[in-house]
Amino acid sequence: MGTYNFSAGPGVLPNEVITKIKNDLAAEENSNYSILEISHRSPRFENIIKHAEAQLRDLMAIPDDYAVLFIQGGGSLQFEMLPLNFANQTGQVAVLDSGNFANKAAKAANAVGKKGVIVASSREEKYRYLPELPHDFQSSDYDYLHITTNNTIEGSTYHQSNLPKTNGHLVADMSSNILAEPYDVTKFSAIFAGAQKNLGPAGVTVAIVKKDWLAEQKIENVGPMMRYQTYVDKDSMYNTPPVFSIYALGLVLDWVKDQGGVDQMYVNNQKKAAKLYDYLDQSDFYQVPVQGTDRSITNVVFTTGDADLDKKISQDADVAGLHHLAGHRSVGGFRASLYNAQPMAAVDTLIDFLKKAAKEN
Amino acid sequence: MGTYNFSAGPGVLPNEVITKIKNDLAAEENSNYSILEISHRSPRFENIIKHAEAQLRDLMAIPDDYAVLFIQGGGSLQFEMLPLNFANQTGQVAVLDSGNFANKAAKAANAVGKKGVIVASSREEKYRYLPELPHDFQSSDYDYLHITTNNTIEGSTYHQSNLPKTNGHLVADMSSNILAEPYDVTKFSAIFAGAQKNLGPAGVTVAIVKKDWLAEQKIENVGPMMRYQTYVDKDSMYNTPPVFSIYALGLVLDWVKDQGGVDQMYVNNQKKAAKLYDYLDQSDFYQVPVQGTDRSITNVVFTTGDADLDKKISQDADVAGLHHLAGHRSVGGFRASLYNAQPMAAVDTLIDFLKKAAKEN
Repeated sequence: MGTYNFSAGPGVLPNEVITKIKNDLAAEENSNYSILEISHRSPRFENIIKHAEAQLRDLMAIPDDYAVLFIQGGGSLQFEMLPLNFANQTGQVAVLDSGNFANKAAKAANAVGKKGVIVASSREEKYRYLPELPHDFQSSDYDYLHITTNNTIEGSTYHQSNLPKTNGHLVADMSSNILAEPYDVTKFSAIFAGAQKNLGPAGVTVAIVKKDWLAEQKIENVGPMMRYQTYVDKDSMYNTPPVFSIYALGLVLDWVKDQGGVDQMYVNNQKKAAKLYDYLDQSDFYQVPVQGTDRSITNVVFTTGDADLDKKISQDADVAGLHHLAGHRSVGGFRASLYNAQPMAAVDTLIDFLKKAAKEN
Repeated sequence: MGTYNFSAGPGVLPNEVITKIKNDLAAEENSNYSILEISHRSPRFENIIKHAEAQLRDLMAIPDDYAVLFIQGGGSLQFEMLPLNFANQTGQVAVLDSGNFANKAAKAANAVGKKGVIVASSREEKYRYLPELPHDFQSSDYDYLHITTNNTIEGSTYHQSNLPKTNGHLVADMSSNILAEPYDVTKFSAIFAGAQKNLGPAGVTVAIVKKDWLAEQKIENVGPMMRYQTYVDKDSMYNTPPVFSIYALGLVLDWVKDQGGVDQMYVNNQKKAAKLYDYLDQSDFYQVPVQGTDRSITNVVFTTGDADLDKKISQDADVAGLHHLAGHRSVGGFRASLYNAQPMAAVDTLIDFLKKAAKEN
């Protein structure tokens, strides 16, 4: 039986990508010239970063009036950069509080001296469903509306079909479902995603920003590293970028394209998730708190309803080679992350294990 | 003849480290569990980051009252974090303008709404020497004094023996000579270094911060990702850290220790630099603009005095397998970066090439 990595991130990457990295390093051994040692000003790296951008543009159909930027600091730094760059007229950011990371984004807006306003929340009900925009929501009261498309911890998703409708600017944290399902980029004024779930190893964050929105901002007392315009002006190389992370991200994008692109990923991910949800739903032993179209296809969250039993079964799973199945420490239960690189065999093995656990416990 | 990488950064790493990374990736292939895919909450990574910190503490003799932090964003983000965290009483940062990066640090302090004050500069004389603190320098007028220990572009260094003497807080950018020569950490209130020169691949920055100085700061309107205290409180894991970069940095630290530590690196680096400077000084063809104790042992800058000829010879060097010898685009000439991982054979090969070029041009 294989070993499977259900980590929510950093998570599983395609074997083909790991092999390619290993082979590249081997080929370059003793040359003083591996991918880990090249200047970011070298033609080789310039090709790598341009290729990564071109592949992402192609995979997501990103129009030319959006910039594609590579930044360090993860989603958490984006929670600070976004209000610093874009909350300049009303100074207010509307947040749909659909999970832990949306909540953090609202707090980060406050921390940088703007106002993060939670306009709807399912926090009191443990984020079991997606909050909707209130009927009296006035987009003009806010500089933008921040959403988390996929709630990694809670296992829920604003899919393209149930995105909130706003007349204002929509900003999306797609960290845990970028390239896992299709989104229409033109519905958003900014999108960002930490790489370490569906794009590559940790260490780089992608930001997709509408250029004309950025151009109209008047920003004060924000340093160059915290301004998106710096990354636009300098092709993400104002200072040394995370060379290896961008190289690995490019390889993952190549892999996604080779597999058939986002549409094919979506087909695969739906199949994987449906198989697991179908098993869980017919089981008397396990429950899924999130219902219907709110459910995530990248992070499947479930529980036996008994915290101690959940913990024991997660530990048994670990021994059986099914790793990182425990839910986030803030919610407990189980979480099976089914990112693009997760094979159907992982789901089959997991279901077999869960059946056995249901009988034995 | 071997190929040598004289890049100023990202630069050459020890072959032993590249081999170890390659072997680790190979061993983990097909396990869905390579270093690129592990959770930052996994015991394996917790060991990696703790070990890296312990090794750095040991190598630099960092006392317990200093925090050792791993941050993303490179030195350029430190240029913004430092004034945001520490320029809170006078709001002024004194800067010894010894090179391009010191100058950038002063500008970054202004950009974040503080005041970066250049108290001495050698900019007008192309940074050919190190500026000294003026006699009437009043440290109490500033929250801290910022220096660049090693000026990567200009090839000059405030060595431990010629550090500026101030009664106030001293902050050092050691990006290009950390672990290349010994410094007494207790002379500084904060030290930082981007990894990509002497510590590992690009993608992580080390900050060493005196805890009691940090504790006394009253900071407003700065988000958690831009506060050092967040990294202290969360052991550099407030959010997902750059896992692979920290793993590789730990391997480099192991290598430095195996080689005999910073003292041995210093002996090696002095030998390499002395051999190259000796050749350049006795040559009628090449000149070194920086003199005496101001000279860097990690970045040796020189020129023929003829910009076109410098360019031609750099291109010839490239063809001969001596890569990235051209000086920074802002100054031209040549720059040979002799970081810890650069072998003496690189210097020997370079001198042979330079002799030949001097005859033929």
